[in-house]
Amino acid sequence: MSISDKFSRRASFIQPAEIRRVVAQIKPDFIPFAAGKPAPHLFPLEAFYEQTGRVIETYGGDALQYSATAGFEPLRAWIAKRVPPAVADDVCIVCGSQQVIDLVGKVMLDPGDKVAVSAPTYTASITSLRVYEPEFISVPYDNEGFVPQALEDALRQRPKLLYAIPNFMNPSGVCMTLERRRQLVELARRYDVPILEDDPYGELRFEDEPLPNLFELAPEQVIYGGTFSKIIAPGLRVGWIVAPADALPKLTVAKQTTDLQTGIYQQTLLYEIVNRMDMEEHIQRVRTYYQRQRDVMLEAMDAYFPPGIKYERPAGGMFIWCELPQGADAGELLQEALARKVAYIPGAAFFANGAGQNTFRLSFTLASEEQIRSGIQILGELFSNFDSISS
Amino acid sequence: MSISDKFSRRASFIQPAEIRRVVAQIKPDFIPFAAGKPAPHLFPLEAFYEQTGRVIETYGGDALQYSATAGFEPLRAWIAKRVPPAVADDVCIVCGSQQVIDLVGKVMLDPGDKVAVSAPTYTASITSLRVYEPEFISVPYDNEGFVPQALEDALRQRPKLLYAIPNFMNPSGVCMTLERRRQLVELARRYDVPILEDDPYGELRFEDEPLPNLFELAPEQVIYGGTFSKIIAPGLRVGWIVAPADALPKLTVAKQTTDLQTGIYQQTLLYEIVNRMDMEEHIQRVRTYYQRQRDVMLEAMDAYFPPGIKYERPAGGMFIWCELPQGADAGELLQEALARKVAYIPGAAFFANGAGQNTFRLSFTLASEEQIRSGIQILGELFSNFDSISS
Repeated sequence: MSISDKFSRRASFIQPAEIRRVVAQIKPDFIPFAAGKPAPHLFPLEAFYEQTGRVIETYGGDALQYSATAGFEPLRAWIAKRVPPAVADDVCIVCGSQQVIDLVGKVMLDPGDKVAVSAPTYTASITSLRVYEPEFISVPYDNEGFVPQALEDALRQRPKLLYAIPNFMNPSGVCMTLERRRQLVELARRYDVPILEDDPYGELRFEDEPLPNLFELAPEQVIYGGTFSKIIAPGLRVGWIVAPADALPKLTVAKQTTDLQTGIYQQTLLYEIVNRMDMEEHIQRVRTYYQRQRDVMLEAMDAYFPPGIKYERPAGGMFIWCELPQGADAGELLQEALARKVAYIPGAAFFANGAGQNTFRLSFTLASEEQIRSGIQILGELFSNFDSISS
Repeated sequence: MSISDKFSRRASFIQPAEIRRVVAQIKPDFIPFAAGKPAPHLFPLEAFYEQTGRVIETYGGDALQYSATAGFEPLRAWIAKRVPPAVADDVCIVCGSQQVIDLVGKVMLDPGDKVAVSAPTYTASITSLRVYEPEFISVPYDNEGFVPQALEDALRQRPKLLYAIPNFMNPSGVCMTLERRRQLVELARRYDVPILEDDPYGELRFEDEPLPNLFELAPEQVIYGGTFSKIIAPGLRVGWIVAPADALPKLTVAKQTTDLQTGIYQQTLLYEIVNRMDMEEHIQRVRTYYQRQRDVMLEAMDAYFPPGIKYERPAGGMFIWCELPQGADAGELLQEALARKVAYIPGAAFFANGAGQNTFRLSFTLASEEQIRSGIQILGELFSNFDSISS
């Protein structure tokens, strides 16, 4: 008897993200430029400590019982205020914004349907959507967003879905300009393509004014995913879908058939925390810390990286995206980096079309300033060697 | 633009459970024989109150960070001890045992595959598995388990999966006999059919000795789903898969593509609670309460129900299953019951084959003893009327 002999066709598309293999090789004493985790000292531990008891006192058994699939009403209302023009009824609470991607795939995608994604894109958008057997169309993305002509060519193929991360994209850090946002929703409307807007990083803006989300620009056209993972903590797995009235009910039933509901305990706890904390002050603290981390990393890169490596200055988020000269293989080089106890993520994992061999992603959230400087110096040496070999 | 025009074929199979429509009609002052919820006063509120702070003190940021998809190792080990012969590596923590059903459907079922289920069966097993577009084979279930000849006829059709709830099944309350368990795994082996064993109620045994789970009888053949919902509380959505080595890795990756992982916060919290509480004493308290509730309900049924209604005495669980005379419609009668402020679940929702119009499910967990007596009296009157009309 072998259960695996009886797996579905779909099961062959259920594969771990490539970057998991990298992460598995990382030891605790390595310099951590790989993992996309928030800095744990920014988690509001005191608020958790204070509010957990309050939740039990205030809600009693109601905080531990089965609950509505759409989620805890006051939390939905709190979220709606942050995602204009949404109201509470437009919100469904889910287990992290990863689940938004899965539910949208479940509800939208038949095998062979086309899905347009940026090149590069969030690696787990590929692994999650791939389960539903679509064909990916990779759309080039520059420092302002989707390249307009390439985007139009892609949308003309009438994909079922366009997946976009307008704010400080993982991995490239790019924040889509307002003009590109307007072009994007205009094109999506013209070609009648729904957008999945994934927005884990929108609050992590270090400079410039916030730009309207795609959902704000075209609420009838966009399914929006958000999360507490980056502004509070990822360890409760609470995120949200905001979607128009012709999509949210089906997504909510899909959530119900998947896992009934997100735990009411973690929802009430997060509600008490965000409601009683000075959230603007807290988020400002997170921003200030990450901004400083970014600056330290960029300074070190300016000092130690050879001129052949290209990178931009992200205005927010958690990542700096780097491009080696064409022909370089950041995946091969990783083994040397790991041997010198520095970890990063080779960029190929972020492309649905097999490109990006010469790119890699650096995360600036977890390393100390000292680690950033020494880690970047090590990478600079490593890449200098390579540069001279290949030239 | 309409997103719903672009839904997948699968989306038409993503439908709410029928019983949601019933539950939506129930007002707070109704006598609650419908909902399958645990009694909230049995939730260990003090343990939650004490341990939440401890979790933050002990684990700090680790309790709030991203974590491994398979789950928190000490909790996996604790679970494995309760599901012999499992070890920690055989366990993956998920968001409630409902997610076990969804993940198994995702990994196992192609459209048109056959799935054998009992008649009746857990209603949300139908709604969750239906998403993956199988054909259901409904196998008659008597007071000892699957009817053997009917089961063999079903397994001879080589279904991809047999779904079973051996312990105090929702809705019928039946506990499968040891002989039937042995026959079942023997037949499943002979016809090479994997079993999904759903076991939310196994600990809620009021009398007799525990029987081995199907996983214990045939660990190579069974994917086992368990949950904290009935022994601790449902509001954290923590359950588990136990599966053989050729199925667990794929199920774990499926979990990863669905929602990355179950929140480490709720896992560490539950671990501290179950590890520091006297769990046997706690579970005994839960059992004793539900047993008394069952007895009060059965006494009232013996007193008030007309002889035409058949029901059995469940040895555990949360439900009593009732059968009206053939031709009666428990769904129609529900409207009269609701008008008299008594709620139950019509049995048709628990059949994949459209049968069970004359059956209904009573839950004895939430009502007070007084409510049980008056609610059963009202139902007795209602059904007496009907009896005399139909005779």
